[in-house]
Amino acid sequence: MNDDILELCNRLIPQAYVTQGAQARASHENVIKQLLEHRKLPQQGWDDQTIELLLHELAVMDSNNFPGNCGVGERESRLASSLVARRHYRLGHGIGRSGDITAVQPKAAGSSILMKITNCMVMDIIKLSGIKSVKNGFVVPVATGMALVLCMLTLKLKKPEAKYVLWPRIDQKSCFKSIITAGLVPVVIENLLAGDELRTDIAAILKKIQELGANNILCVMSTTSCFAPRAPDKLEEISALCKENDIPHLVNNAYGLQSSKCTHLLQQAARIGRVDAFVQSLDKNFMVPVGGSIIAGFDKDFINEIGKTYPGRASATPSVDLFITLLSLGANGYQQLLDERKEMYAYLASALEKCAGKFGERRLNTKNNPISQGISLNLPDDPKGEKLTEIGSMLFTRFVSGTRVVAPGNDVTISGYMFKNFGSHSNNYPCAYLTAAAAIGMKKNDVDMFIGRLEKVLSKCKSSLEAQRDSSTPNKLEEDS
Amino acid sequence: MNDDILELCNRLIPQAYVTQGAQARASHENVIKQLLEHRKLPQQGWDDQTIELLLHELAVMDSNNFPGNCGVGERESRLASSLVARRHYRLGHGIGRSGDITAVQPKAAGSSILMKITNCMVMDIIKLSGIKSVKNGFVVPVATGMALVLCMLTLKLKKPEAKYVLWPRIDQKSCFKSIITAGLVPVVIENLLAGDELRTDIAAILKKIQELGANNILCVMSTTSCFAPRAPDKLEEISALCKENDIPHLVNNAYGLQSSKCTHLLQQAARIGRVDAFVQSLDKNFMVPVGGSIIAGFDKDFINEIGKTYPGRASATPSVDLFITLLSLGANGYQQLLDERKEMYAYLASALEKCAGKFGERRLNTKNNPISQGISLNLPDDPKGEKLTEIGSMLFTRFVSGTRVVAPGNDVTISGYMFKNFGSHSNNYPCAYLTAAAAIGMKKNDVDMFIGRLEKVLSKCKSSLEAQRDSSTPNKLEEDS
Amino acid sequence: MNDDILELCNRLIPQAYVTQGAQARASHENVIKQLLEHRKLPQQGWDDQTIELLLHELAVMDSNNFPGNCGVGERESRLASSLVARRHYRLGHGIGRSGDITAVQPKAAGSSILMKITNCMVMDIIKLSGIKSVKNGFVVPVATGMALVLCMLTLKLKKPEAKYVLWPRIDQKSCFKSIITAGLVPVVIENLLAGDELRTDIAAILKKIQELGANNILCVMSTTSCFAPRAPDKLEEISALCKENDIPHLVNNAYGLQSSKCTHLLQQAARIGRVDAFVQSLDKNFMVPVGGSIIAGFDKDFINEIGKTYPGRASATPSVDLFITLLSLGANGYQQLLDERKEMYAYLASALEKCAGKFGERRLNTKNNPISQGISLNLPDDPKGEKLTEIGSMLFTRFVSGTRVVAPGNDVTISGYMFKNFGSHSNNYPCAYLTAAAAIGMKKNDVDMFIGRLEKVLSKCKSSLEAQRDSSTPNKLEEDS
Amino acid sequence: MNDDILELCNRLIPQAYVTQGAQARASHENVIKQLLEHRKLPQQGWDDQTIELLLHELAVMDSNNFPGNCGVGERESRLASSLVARRHYRLGHGIGRSGDITAVQPKAAGSSILMKITNCMVMDIIKLSGIKSVKNGFVVPVATGMALVLCMLTLKLKKPEAKYVLWPRIDQKSCFKSIITAGLVPVVIENLLAGDELRTDIAAILKKIQELGANNILCVMSTTSCFAPRAPDKLEEISALCKENDIPHLVNNAYGLQSSKCTHLLQQAARIGRVDAFVQSLDKNFMVPVGGSIIAGFDKDFINEIGKTYPGRASATPSVDLFITLLSLGANGYQQLLDERKEMYAYLASALEKCAGKFGERRLNTKNNPISQGISLNLPDDPKGEKLTEIGSMLFTRFVSGTRVVAPGNDVTISGYMFKNFGSHSNNYPCAYLTAAAAIGMKKNDVDMFIGRLEKVLSKCKSSLEAQRDSSTPNKLEEDS
Repeated sequence: MNDDILELCNRLIPQAYVTQGAQARASHENVIKQLLEHRKLPQQGWDDQTIELLLHELAVMDSNNFPGNCGVGERESRLASSLVARRHYRLGHGIGRSGDITAVQPKAAGSSILMKITNCMVMDIIKLSGIKSVKNGFVVPVATGMALVLCMLTLKLKKPEAKYVLWPRIDQKSCFKSIITAGLVPVVIENLLAGDELRTDIAAILKKIQELGANNILCVMSTTSCFAPRAPDKLEEISALCKENDIPHLVNNAYGLQSSKCTHLLQQAARIGRVDAFVQSLDKNFMVPVGGSIIAGFDKDFINEIGKTYPGRASATPSVDLFITLLSLGANGYQQLLDERKEMYAYLASALEKCAGKFGERRLNTKNNPISQGISLNLPDDPKGEKLTEIGSMLFTRFVSGTRVVAPGNDVTISGYMFKNFGSHSNNYPCAYLTAAAAIGMKKNDVDMFIGRLEKVLSKCKSSLEAQRDSSTPNKLEEDS
Repeated sequence: MNDDILELCNRLIPQAYVTQGAQARASHENVIKQLLEHRKLPQQGWDDQTIELLLHELAVMDSNNFPGNCGVGERESRLASSLVARRHYRLGHGIGRSGDITAVQPKAAGSSILMKITNCMVMDIIKLSGIKSVKNGFVVPVATGMALVLCMLTLKLKKPEAKYVLWPRIDQKSCFKSIITAGLVPVVIENLLAGDELRTDIAAILKKIQELGANNILCVMSTTSCFAPRAPDKLEEISALCKENDIPHLVNNAYGLQSSKCTHLLQQAARIGRVDAFVQSLDKNFMVPVGGSIIAGFDKDFINEIGKTYPGRASATPSVDLFITLLSLGANGYQQLLDERKEMYAYLASALEKCAGKFGERRLNTKNNPISQGISLNLPDDPKGEKLTEIGSMLFTRFVSGTRVVAPGNDVTISGYMFKNFGSHSNNYPCAYLTAAAAIGMKKNDVDMFIGRLEKVLSKCKSSLEAQRDSSTPNKLEEDS
Repeated sequence: MNDDILELCNRLIPQAYVTQGAQARASHENVIKQLLEHRKLPQQGWDDQTIELLLHELAVMDSNNFPGNCGVGERESRLASSLVARRHYRLGHGIGRSGDITAVQPKAAGSSILMKITNCMVMDIIKLSGIKSVKNGFVVPVATGMALVLCMLTLKLKKPEAKYVLWPRIDQKSCFKSIITAGLVPVVIENLLAGDELRTDIAAILKKIQELGANNILCVMSTTSCFAPRAPDKLEEISALCKENDIPHLVNNAYGLQSSKCTHLLQQAARIGRVDAFVQSLDKNFMVPVGGSIIAGFDKDFINEIGKTYPGRASATPSVDLFITLLSLGANGYQQLLDERKEMYAYLASALEKCAGKFGERRLNTKNNPISQGISLNLPDDPKGEKLTEIGSMLFTRFVSGTRVVAPGNDVTISGYMFKNFGSHSNNYPCAYLTAAAAIGMKKNDVDMFIGRLEKVLSKCKSSLEAQRDSSTPNKLEEDS
Repeated sequence: MNDDILELCNRLIPQAYVTQGAQARASHENVIKQLLEHRKLPQQGWDDQTIELLLHELAVMDSNNFPGNCGVGERESRLASSLVARRHYRLGHGIGRSGDITAVQPKAAGSSILMKITNCMVMDIIKLSGIKSVKNGFVVPVATGMALVLCMLTLKLKKPEAKYVLWPRIDQKSCFKSIITAGLVPVVIENLLAGDELRTDIAAILKKIQELGANNILCVMSTTSCFAPRAPDKLEEISALCKENDIPHLVNNAYGLQSSKCTHLLQQAARIGRVDAFVQSLDKNFMVPVGGSIIAGFDKDFINEIGKTYPGRASATPSVDLFITLLSLGANGYQQLLDERKEMYAYLASALEKCAGKFGERRLNTKNNPISQGISLNLPDDPKGEKLTEIGSMLFTRFVSGTRVVAPGNDVTISGYMFKNFGSHSNNYPCAYLTAAAAIGMKKNDVDMFIGRLEKVLSKCKSSLEAQRDSSTPNKLEEDS
């Protein structure tokens, strides 16, 4: 709808109406202009119409959509299915080039602009979430596990002889496996019990550094967001140690961007000591489908190096999803989600406390974990933890997703490394427990439904155990579950 | 529309019509049933309606879409934007689990089924394209470069001391960089000139094996599809060498699945010698957006190991795109695309031959390259190749995408390795040239438009050079290009 | 996803996950079953996924979507454009048959079910909105004007000699024109001024009945919803008159369904006297695009006759839009919209009152009009109403839509009938005024923006008039508006 | 993407790429400009991307999509459901105003432009299809039956005393009912048998004119497209009669636009005599969903009058569907559909001829009917036509839609008028028969499947009759059909 076209519209309908339509168009264009000029997440979210308008405009700039384009290369982004073309807004070239995942593609101006703008908004939202001094960051279209691999492979190029990764234990497979996949040797640092909480054993890290030699250590991989009763790692102490010993420090901030506690830890750690890169999941922090993450850091060049380590092109989908979602939410919308999440944490805490009390259990005191929380599960006559396991599956069949019931005795071997009592982040956590998280997007209704169903399950479970004690016969909780 | 519902429909409209509607539904269900039963690419493509019906049904089976689900985990696949939800058919959980990218997710039955079925159809289509004895394969949601990294990292876990990768030179950055990214040492094997063609120097490979020692060599990475005048590698000889010397063999089959010559090479190589894995691009072979590839091989267990090396979950998008595209095409549709591509290759060859002749150039005789082809470009008074470069950009501004103009003198350093005359796969290819490819999805119209524009550009270029020779003044071809 | 298919799923992924997916599917099916069984607007709105699921299921039952259907008729609902097919969910056969717009089509079981269910929900929502004793009603895919024509043509078939329609004046062209279009003779009944309000002149109606003879009068067409300062007609008195004199009574309830006052009038009128049919707009009451209306009444047979008067098939679009919208809102959602509207009426009233006061104007006291309200506009030096007109266009260019500025002196002739001071429902309303409506879907923000802009415009206008008075030179308010 | 925005893009990615993207955008804009400038159906169809781009641009110009618009009217086109908004491309205001269905709406510049352009393309396509001298026409969002009513109501306004409509019998309910609905008196003119064909009885028309008096006759309603063995009416003779006697002539050209024979008849009739308006279905001629038609004619003013008779606004959906479809097809695409249809007619004719021969039947010689054709069905021992009826339902259950089996003895009363042997256009057509049509969009595959299934049904039917003759017991063809 350029001026020529508007002029022609004047011949079809009265000019005053065309003028007003043109003004409305100019309003849409203006927000687009603001975005491209300031490259910041807009304060106010956009309506879907403006978002789609921009996506269509960008698609028009990609060569596969050029009217009269003739493609004689091996990769021309022809799309065989119109369903596929439609769901990708006809953007097919992906992002990046052989040399750099943040590079611009000559064949895909639209996709390239989208990628650039998304990365700009990413910087903005990292700051908004509390990490004010971040210097560089980009969306990488792999989930956190592979993103951590990429970071370590980049570090490896700079420090080829180092092979150890010091890793304060967190019982989540992907991050552990990422060390193995990168061809490195994990050095597990067991956590210390502090009250109900599991905290980083800084002394043990120091000892390992001295034992293995800083030169042989590729990096320390610490963790912020994690399941209770583990707390986020003591990032400040770790980063200080890393700085002193000249050891890279990689932070797995998987779903930590949504918590001001986690981002505060990162901000402080970078101020005091050394943080080379921190990685976070797109789906867990921004409510988009699984498949992307953000690699960010405080040293512009190093983050660029990671981008350059990525060989070849990559999917634009995570960037497109984030682009749409951030524009749709705006800074206000995202801030509101963060605020609501914090409220839900408190609401869940009080509900769990009450619920636990009813059944003679207690909420674990894990005050440093801002997302995940747990209640004890003491089933006296359940030595093998069978009943405990059943609680998990009873919740699952009642459409409760995301709880974890952790019972002792679950020894697991991953890539040749044995973890005693896997799941509890510790060789000997004193009790069994159940965890639940207050993650972004959770609603009061989720908590209420969860607590209601949990109470039913616990009630059933406890009375079954009592019945069993009376009859001395083992007794499966639910035949049909 | 179960039987109860159909019964209720009978009360609203005459039973005969309901019955017929139910029969129609049963037809759709029947093709779905066939798919799930035989797990093969259907012979006949499906219409979009049936595809979408199945996608909706699968989405219903994922926990984020359960009516009354309450999510209290850290990853519940809530989707903030309805635009995003819609474009993913409300599938948000991605594919895979921490342990294995081909593993089933309890929270995402629908996504898991989709992933499984897609991988089954992938096996089918690999066979259809000519690699009959393939044993295992899966979609991995990273492009070929990263997929090659993943293969090498897996090999590295099995052969941790080996660090060399023998690599018959192909001037494409991603595959070279994949070796670097994996933390390995590339050993470049220069190609031999045979007529116009560049062929694998088998003797040089053998010599390097003897020199470095088979134990120190992680693998040979060979290439099928490539830009002319390079030909696909001599896979049979390489795989025989690998077998004899017990060296893994990784094949970069980037866009080779579309060519029966490339797939025949792979099939033969596996029969005669050793091929551990071969990697191909989804976008280049199946006309979907960039972002996925297939890793496949002839040893079921080894391919499974690669799947298990992938740490954590991953994007379902490439699988969804391929799922839709393959169902939409059917075996017949894909076969037809392959046939048309072959015809286009011949059509392009004859058109290039004619065009070259008009300008005193000739089509390079690269009979072993089934996709890419080239014509010589001899511009006598253009010692620095400036005019040649300009030809490329003149074609670009005329909406011709995908040609490559290769002039001598372009020395490039990648990750510390210098490549003389980068782009030509050779330190000293005898002439400058221009390449074009007949890739899947190309239409006669593409060729005709391309040749028309090429002739205009060459004509402009040649007459400019003549004018220049006459006036002895340098002369830019196009001021405004 | 019938049982056979689920059984096959069990071979791909663990049965427990399939079972849970099947349960989720059953939940969706259950709400669909409830809908078909009770044929009532669900209390709780459905999510988009369930709505689309049902639409896809219904489309599958239409013959144009039958796999293997061969169409050899002249109307097979082939759809040339996939964009069009998609936007209609592949439903193409429309609704109705030659004999009856509410009849079932053999070729289109799905569309027919959709039409039937929509009409059932329509009955429900009419009752919910206050007209409890409604007996029959259906969606007709024409807007209110044509729907009124259809009602009158049906009456005409029963009373072929009658040609007059008594019509208490309402200055809205469509309804007046509907009488003309139907080939009938409008008899305008001027309104009476009661305070600020214009009310029905019941005595004048009675007089006309006596004058023309009841047999010659096809019907009285009364109106509920209308622009202030007119009030809804005195439906009770009119319907009583109609009953006594055996004259049909047609009520134009265009946007009255959203107001409990209007629906109460209808309910009372039907109880006391005679209402043959009442017509309401879909877009104005249900926030769907323009194009449909509901014809309803208290005599099942007569409403059926209207349906049978419609010759041939018709668009399903209004039914589909209403189907989606009602399912999406649910009874709760619609009730909430009604409640919010009522609040907005009060909010707008108080804001207008305040605003009018600031400029020496007053809010008109039109307490019987539950939707539209007005403020006086006394511009002393504006005898021709030019400034007044300009106020309207100044608001328009400031993106205020929907206000009406009514100045005396606007005599309009429609189809040969002259209306003095058209727009004011009266030959001599005492003052100029501006109206605004609190219609369904209005938000507080709309009112606030409106009042803000109105104050700016009035302020500009008043000061311009003062300046003009001082300089004695006419002065256009805005050069560029 | 105005110049300011492109300038900002230059700061994100190299200018050359932005320039090329801008050129591509300009190409899209250029086709849009051509459309608005010439207001003609483009020769070449547009791709979906350009169509959607234009639709989005138009939607932006409608007030309900203005950013910052505040709506205080009773009709602001707020859309409650995002599914509904999406399927209408956020166009909600419909088309037309109270005064005229082709009038521009101040609140809806975009919708108004769309409506105007669609009507321009309609004029173009009517000419393309053969009616070169058409002067005016527009899309009306009601199907043909109601469109005919509208035409007659408009005629009635001009000729209020006339009440008869002369109507050469065609056994299709909607058009007959349209006369009744319009409050008029149909005068049925029985057809004459000429060979196998039923033709217009011109003499009978003349006689009726003389009998009733031209002044009392509102119009003659003739028909082009119809089921065999009826032929299109003798339009030239009728129009000549109408001209001579000053009687309006309305032509029901329901699906005749797709046939050059029908359009030739119209063109000739207008040249020789009088045609006031002709009406055609959108769905039957343009492969869009049911719901719209085109009213066109040779007198600009009269067609405008019909547009002005329509009271109030109306659905934009038929216009939007036609807009998309025509742009998508282009003149070339539509012409190709017309050509294919003609081929299919011949193909169906030869297939029916062969099939009939096999069963001792014959193809009816109805050479003047260019779309529908029939074969005789002589079942000697089926006096009540029961077997014949069963043939129809057997075909229906075999997913053959659109055939008609016409047996004598089906007397039907419509609105009080009795039609002997309804369905056969005649009181005494000599034999039973089955018809099939070659309508636009039909594929060779439709014919082949139809003939295959027809042969099976006829074979089953004939052998059942033989068996019955042998056993002398009545015998239902199919128990379960």
